[in-house]
Amino acid sequence: MARFKLIIEYDGTSFCGWQRQKDRMSVQQALEEAIAKFSGETVTTQAAGRTDAGVHALGQVAHFDLLRDWDAFRVREALNYHLRPHPVAVIECDAVRADFEARFSARARHYEYRILNRRAPAAIERNQVWHVPMALDADRMQDAARRILGSHDFTTFRSSECQAKSPIRTLDAFEVSADGEVISITASARSFLHHQVRSMVGSLKLVGEGKWSPVDFRAALDAADRSRCGGMAPSSGLYLTGVDY
Amino acid sequence: MARFKLIIEYDGTSFCGWQRQKDRMSVQQALEEAIAKFSGETVTTQAAGRTDAGVHALGQVAHFDLLRDWDAFRVREALNYHLRPHPVAVIECDAVRADFEARFSARARHYEYRILNRRAPAAIERNQVWHVPMALDADRMQDAARRILGSHDFTTFRSSECQAKSPIRTLDAFEVSADGEVISITASARSFLHHQVRSMVGSLKLVGEGKWSPVDFRAALDAADRSRCGGMAPSSGLYLTGVDY
Repeated sequence: MARFKLIIEYDGTSFCGWQRQKDRMSVQQALEEAIAKFSGETVTTQAAGRTDAGVHALGQVAHFDLLRDWDAFRVREALNYHLRPHPVAVIECDAVRADFEARFSARARHYEYRILNRRAPAAIERNQVWHVPMALDADRMQDAARRILGSHDFTTFRSSECQAKSPIRTLDAFEVSADGEVISITASARSFLHHQVRSMVGSLKLVGEGKWSPVDFRAALDAADRSRCGGMAPSSGLYLTGVDY
Repeated sequence: MARFKLIIEYDGTSFCGWQRQKDRMSVQQALEEAIAKFSGETVTTQAAGRTDAGVHALGQVAHFDLLRDWDAFRVREALNYHLRPHPVAVIECDAVRADFEARFSARARHYEYRILNRRAPAAIERNQVWHVPMALDADRMQDAARRILGSHDFTTFRSSECQAKSPIRTLDAFEVSADGEVISITASARSFLHHQVRSMVGSLKLVGEGKWSPVDFRAALDAADRSRCGGMAPSSGLYLTGVDY
């Protein structure tokens, strides 16, 4: 018996998300089919973050077990061969201890959200950014972002369908930076609520447009009321960039 | 009568290239149909570079004439509206003098070629890079690149179907740089021969792998013999990044 840890990149556009669904292709299904093709074993993979439909990953982490003790380099090569033509690539593969759990061993998850802020729509990065045509003030967004660092009840920024027991989360980093036409928002926490990053970014956009002040943004958090969320950013701009263990 | 200059971004993956063809969608056709939709006028657009199928643009330039004197900002907005769902965006639109010619007034054309140099295939940038799994030495490629700057007979790096009268071109810039897993190759010249950048990059890859020395690269150029070309890089990694006037 051997346990393998994978670091995975994918374009989420054509998937129903990470998690298996009956009628639509998921990243999990693509991966498990590739594992079966090279190993002959039917396995269930577990991922650090169950990304939604359209959400991308540069550093998703997953683990799975095989009865046979394969060389990790060969596992990676075989997976990348059998994953074609899906837009999924295994960046790293390592043999790990049997107590490693991609989901439960994670100490921190890192996301990036990318906004293309210009009049003209996205062409090259069409499904890889959120196109916002109104000029956004990134400094003002950063001023708002820093106000919600730390441990809070994030009910305002949580999907009504979120199944987590507690709405309390600790936001360790939340940074807004502009580079030309692209505004990048990075967020780090031990774990996030369902739709948390997209809800925070959708609300930050109102700050960037001048419709909300940074104080309004913090007040929306403090209300702990989903109806106070300023909107949800689309999945196309969101990337799971890495997971720490 | 008014002449408009456009700066255009597009993902070339789904197009047969810039130029109109009978049975396949071209960027030119998508643009001319969008112009007809908002203006009611049937025009022929002229571009600075007739990019091949699969080649992208961040800064293609085109011009066209309209009988009616539209506001340039409204032309850009109307084009971006009617270009949907094609992955083509008009970044800038300006009214220009009647003697401006996107193709013939150009003083310099700039291209970038992007190689993803890692074992794992591309996922997010699948159609936007050339995936090269063997490790490439970017410094060695740069050493080769600088050896062919200036005016030369570029027959070696020219498609056998190239229709230019002369194989002589002047390469003003040709630089190789590495940033993490991405090797970027930029090339600037007043004009390029057909397939010139992809032929130069395909040959530079042999230098990066160690199969050719930088001296071999220069010798291939000096042979002025198409059969000495080291190979042609795929269209997916090539971007027309800008045109100077």
